[in-house]
Amino acid sequence: MEKGSKKLAFKEREDLKTASGVNNRGILSKVYGNLNKDNDKPIIPLGHGDPSVFPCFFTTPVAVEAIVDSVRSSQFNCYASSVGIPPARRAVAEYLSRDLSYKLSPDDVHLTVGCTQAIEVIISVLASPEANILLPRPGFPMYESRAAFSHLEARHFDLLPEKGWEIDLDSVEALVDENTVAMVIINPGNPCGNVYTFQHLKKVAETANKLGIFVIADEVYGHFAFGANSFVPMGELAYIVPVLTLGSISKTWIVPGWRLGWIVLNDPNDILKKAGIADSIKNYLSIITDPATFIQGAIPQILEKTEESFFSNVLSIAKKAADICYDKISEIPCITCPHKPEGGMFVMVELSLSLLDGITDDFDFCLKLAREDSVIVLPGVAVGYKNWLRIAFAVEPSILEEGLERLKKFCQRHALKQ
Amino acid sequence: MEKGSKKLAFKEREDLKTASGVNNRGILSKVYGNLNKDNDKPIIPLGHGDPSVFPCFFTTPVAVEAIVDSVRSSQFNCYASSVGIPPARRAVAEYLSRDLSYKLSPDDVHLTVGCTQAIEVIISVLASPEANILLPRPGFPMYESRAAFSHLEARHFDLLPEKGWEIDLDSVEALVDENTVAMVIINPGNPCGNVYTFQHLKKVAETANKLGIFVIADEVYGHFAFGANSFVPMGELAYIVPVLTLGSISKTWIVPGWRLGWIVLNDPNDILKKAGIADSIKNYLSIITDPATFIQGAIPQILEKTEESFFSNVLSIAKKAADICYDKISEIPCITCPHKPEGGMFVMVELSLSLLDGITDDFDFCLKLAREDSVIVLPGVAVGYKNWLRIAFAVEPSILEEGLERLKKFCQRHALKQ
Repeated sequence: MEKGSKKLAFKEREDLKTASGVNNRGILSKVYGNLNKDNDKPIIPLGHGDPSVFPCFFTTPVAVEAIVDSVRSSQFNCYASSVGIPPARRAVAEYLSRDLSYKLSPDDVHLTVGCTQAIEVIISVLASPEANILLPRPGFPMYESRAAFSHLEARHFDLLPEKGWEIDLDSVEALVDENTVAMVIINPGNPCGNVYTFQHLKKVAETANKLGIFVIADEVYGHFAFGANSFVPMGELAYIVPVLTLGSISKTWIVPGWRLGWIVLNDPNDILKKAGIADSIKNYLSIITDPATFIQGAIPQILEKTEESFFSNVLSIAKKAADICYDKISEIPCITCPHKPEGGMFVMVELSLSLLDGITDDFDFCLKLAREDSVIVLPGVAVGYKNWLRIAFAVEPSILEEGLERLKKFCQRHALKQ
Repeated sequence: MEKGSKKLAFKEREDLKTASGVNNRGILSKVYGNLNKDNDKPIIPLGHGDPSVFPCFFTTPVAVEAIVDSVRSSQFNCYASSVGIPPARRAVAEYLSRDLSYKLSPDDVHLTVGCTQAIEVIISVLASPEANILLPRPGFPMYESRAAFSHLEARHFDLLPEKGWEIDLDSVEALVDENTVAMVIINPGNPCGNVYTFQHLKKVAETANKLGIFVIADEVYGHFAFGANSFVPMGELAYIVPVLTLGSISKTWIVPGWRLGWIVLNDPNDILKKAGIADSIKNYLSIITDPATFIQGAIPQILEKTEESFFSNVLSIAKKAADICYDKISEIPCITCPHKPEGGMFVMVELSLSLLDGITDDFDFCLKLAREDSVIVLPGVAVGYKNWLRIAFAVEPSILEEGLERLKKFCQRHALKQ
């Protein structure tokens, strides 16, 4: 603008600043920003759940060739309908119905641009003045970001490390009031790496039903379980309480960048439909963008044709990595792991600052670890757990070992001399 | 939920209902919903801008094989950074710089999930209490939807059919106050099919500068021009007024379902940066989903390797279709086209209801046309122009002719007998 012209009337949105500030993306990028570029050690990324860059975790050729076939067909270059194309919705309904004692309809399935957009949809739809939602602590910060942006009050219930990160249902009961709409559970757990039993999920369902709220089940790590508890979808409890299930192919197929997720109504008693929630989801989907149509077009082939051996191989590497992680951490005095991971891609560990010299908190720990040893770990504060760390173990095992060895040496160097 | 349990606390958001109600997707689906399933005539879709389903408009194999190479490389299954991956940003910056007298930096480019998400980003970032934005009438209803959802006041300036749909700059001046942040222009025009001259764009820039607002240039139909005026990017006037350019590969490559768009800062004097708009865009991008990484990975190859003959062939078919459309409409007494289309995929035509019997308005016209003749056209009310029609001419020419022939017969059947 030329001299003398008016100043732009733009005012920065405070809610956007807050929303972006509580996001793990922003915190991780600060940790990355503290890397020492003169350090010649290769960077070891234990900060986020994306093993797709490691050859041992490469996705199946079945999925890749499904994309190739779809894009070459010329049938899926067009716009999709805002809820998703029918063959993809049908395939997701059938895929999820395998683990349920009832059958989902394609109409129950809404495709989204990854689980990130599914979270955006749900939080935006539920945000009305005075409403509140219950979120787990520790949790996944995108819920907090979107709630802050949408002015939806977030209240936090506790997960109990000493009980395998089960939900503290007493704290849930204490938080609910007449404006509480729903509670979010993440299973298999991010950031805790736990997997809930059927019995615990049943208690969650009964509590939610008693309190008059419904359950949002974030199952983006669905089937990513390799411990004693096998994965049970929350939708199996939908005869007790209605469930909105969020999921995606990102983790199970190790393709987080493909951005194909879903919101599914597990609502056998039509409670969400009658309350208007199903319509609101459709309305919101009509004003946002969609997953690429040719990726939708590949979904039937991906879900139906992937061989079991792909999943069992991925899970066996993940289990091996989780074992390495647990064992190695037990060698580090100032870090304690309360629960061996049995699913997902992360583990939460506690820092004993009193055993460390010159480290002020978890964020300071992660900044210095990045600077000195080129190892990236997420400070617990990013997931609502100050002075803990979230470590991603879904990493090529030899690289994970090297990263944890550096972590151990870092702790030794910074140990308080007694 | 069992008998006697509480009612869900969910309250439907009125702003979401409004936002979804003014969306063309909803209106079009009502028109589709009125099709007579017993009618054996094939459906002719002149309602939306998606020629990708017609073989004569199929995208170039260069683009398809770029996707194939990208997904098979295993390098792009990972999460992307929230502004987009560097090679794709660089390629978009170079592609757009070809038409500019200065060079864009990759940092000016932000990748989005199609232009739909670009609109979401801009409107969300600009929405603050009391702010207002100027939108063209007729226009593209996603702006209205997002503004309604974000509580951003939308004020409408007129496009002048008698002047080739140029912007009525007097009406712009009359609308602006101290809370006006920006004005949106769509060039080549949707829904009007016009292409602005450099001289007109310069006047727009000078007016905006004088008024202290910046320009959002929706150039999703960029380069889709086949008439006398060649396409000039608004960014070329950025030395007069800062410009945010929205674009995508959807239209130029005929792949609307691939969902890859961009927001570009044409801001040589750093006015948008200093005002905090650049940071706000980044903050918003950090809390939303991203375009599929492997589609981003294909962008350099798509933008650099597509042969000129692909574009010239597409434009020559589009020109032929526009001519057919204009000529055929001139044979229909109750429909008038004020300006022959010279770009984009649509034309706006005026209905003379006084010449028709038993048709109450444009929406009624479209519903009956769908029911009786299986031809889909968007009522003008959906784009802010009651009793006009928006006709998509970017359709395989023989199908377009058949559709317009049915339209003509429909008008003859419903003509008022004098």
